[in-house]
Amino acid sequence: MPTHPLAAPLLAGQRRALARAITLIESTRPDHEAEAQALLAELGPHAGGAVRIGLTGVPGVGKSTFIEALGLWLAERGHRVAVLAVDPSSVRTGGSIMGDKTRMPGLSVHPGAFIRPSPSGGTLGGVARRTREAMTLCEAAGYDVVLVETVGVGQSETQVAGMTDLFVLLTLPNAGDELQGIKRGIMELCDLAVVNKADTDPRAANRAQSQLTAALSLLTPHGAEWRPRALQLSALNGQGIEAFWEAVQEFRGTVDLPARRRTQTAGWFDELLREAVWKTFVQGRSQVLGQRRSEVLAGQLTPVQAVRALLDLPLDRPEPRPR
Amino acid sequence: MPTHPLAAPLLAGQRRALARAITLIESTRPDHEAEAQALLAELGPHAGGAVRIGLTGVPGVGKSTFIEALGLWLAERGHRVAVLAVDPSSVRTGGSIMGDKTRMPGLSVHPGAFIRPSPSGGTLGGVARRTREAMTLCEAAGYDVVLVETVGVGQSETQVAGMTDLFVLLTLPNAGDELQGIKRGIMELCDLAVVNKADTDPRAANRAQSQLTAALSLLTPHGAEWRPRALQLSALNGQGIEAFWEAVQEFRGTVDLPARRRTQTAGWFDELLREAVWKTFVQGRSQVLGQRRSEVLAGQLTPVQAVRALLDLPLDRPEPRPR
Repeated sequence: MPTHPLAAPLLAGQRRALARAITLIESTRPDHEAEAQALLAELGPHAGGAVRIGLTGVPGVGKSTFIEALGLWLAERGHRVAVLAVDPSSVRTGGSIMGDKTRMPGLSVHPGAFIRPSPSGGTLGGVARRTREAMTLCEAAGYDVVLVETVGVGQSETQVAGMTDLFVLLTLPNAGDELQGIKRGIMELCDLAVVNKADTDPRAANRAQSQLTAALSLLTPHGAEWRPRALQLSALNGQGIEAFWEAVQEFRGTVDLPARRRTQTAGWFDELLREAVWKTFVQGRSQVLGQRRSEVLAGQLTPVQAVRALLDLPLDRPEPRPR
Repeated sequence: MPTHPLAAPLLAGQRRALARAITLIESTRPDHEAEAQALLAELGPHAGGAVRIGLTGVPGVGKSTFIEALGLWLAERGHRVAVLAVDPSSVRTGGSIMGDKTRMPGLSVHPGAFIRPSPSGGTLGGVARRTREAMTLCEAAGYDVVLVETVGVGQSETQVAGMTDLFVLLTLPNAGDELQGIKRGIMELCDLAVVNKADTDPRAANRAQSQLTAALSLLTPHGAEWRPRALQLSALNGQGIEAFWEAVQEFRGTVDLPARRRTQTAGWFDELLREAVWKTFVQGRSQVLGQRRSEVLAGQLTPVQAVRALLDLPLDRPEPRPR
């Protein structure tokens, strides 16, 4: 198999090669896609060595400050830290969430860190695919901590939880009020909940921690491999960072990560395949699909009749079944 | 359009015609399916007149006693009550959850009530489809309250919530302990939570009601059309039945039911279609699918490469897109 020219420098940890490889996987040019997939297949066996941490929280909760504080703390201890973002809204605006130098002034210039804003999506698998692929590249380049940040648009939290080892929800000390702003289902994805800016109001932070602990406990089934917990932290003065990292280590020691990652990869493959099969079917059929749906909603056809008609499956013969 | 011989007696409310029509939709004979779909299309315009209530709760919570108490209370007030069940496990056992005469001794012989155990599934749409279709038939036969019960196997709660107007979770007074046994996501489907057997331990029932209220409040987004609430009830002595029914009426007055039902029907149609498209694709491909999945898990192919190969989409041409 021919080796891609970016492979060797990327495996040697050269940041420029990594940045160029990510640009390659972001490209929407069809010939670039074939090249990018060949590079990914080549680098795949060298990936998988990082702790993958997903992170979400409403705007204003201090995600950037948290990443800056945690990232610098880790980088100072010899870790190599990559920061990626999933932001479906950037497909529309075409840009990143905010300038990284403004958001993370220290981390963005640290030699042990690599920050990449949200890659543009739009093709098969969307933004989530680009971020997964960028994660593979970062791991092959030797980054041992990958932080994947999401702004919480659409399905992005589920996607990020589905590609990371551990999913972190960042909240504010007034979490009791804030919780209602948290989207349905987020609490259930969460492995650690972190009350950020705990120094601003210690009493409120304690209360928020208790409320989060109770909510997480309610939502965790008996016999779960890991019982999600709530922590306090102040990204601004660095308080709680070490305890956070200890919880991450404990999580890694508790959960069967290889099994979790295999499940994630298999699920991701199935999802991509279903999406591609569906797109292939829908292609050129949008008008007739819309007509059948209207007839169903008007009560002129039953859903089953409409489905059979669309698939050219006569109603008096059995439907195809998987063997 | 020729009229089905069962249509007129069913529309006249004859229970035997209704029972025979449900047997027809349950049939797995291909020629029966065409006949059943024609009958459903004919009766569709006469359906939709019932309050559709979904009901779930762990075994032992008193679902049968609750349905018996509520059903008799309603039937005595002139309502016509149909009880259906979604039980995916019965596909395997071939039977219903339990004999209805044992479970609901009064309701099962009441002239205003119609009880039908879980229809067998297995074809396109599975058990949920049969139950939806049975609901249509009950409504066409003039039943104005339809209770759909689920034993909570697999996705059945989501399916029942997706076919009913209002979804009810039944719990016990020791809900604080019990909550952890409730499957993830159930609380989020729930419009009313009912602490059953409240008479057995009033203090525990009060506590359970508070805990449920708090949990529901946490999970309900700001601006929700309806704020789910918790009630207490004793099915055994009838206490709380009237308050339950008042809450159902309030729900109906608050929520835009026609919009909710249109969304449900459209979602159901899309789901059936995706399932049929997927089954058609998978048919005869299980071996090659398994091979590609193994190669992906072994890191020999990227998921995108495997998907392209399976769909015969060359990597150097753009994928098909919906127009």
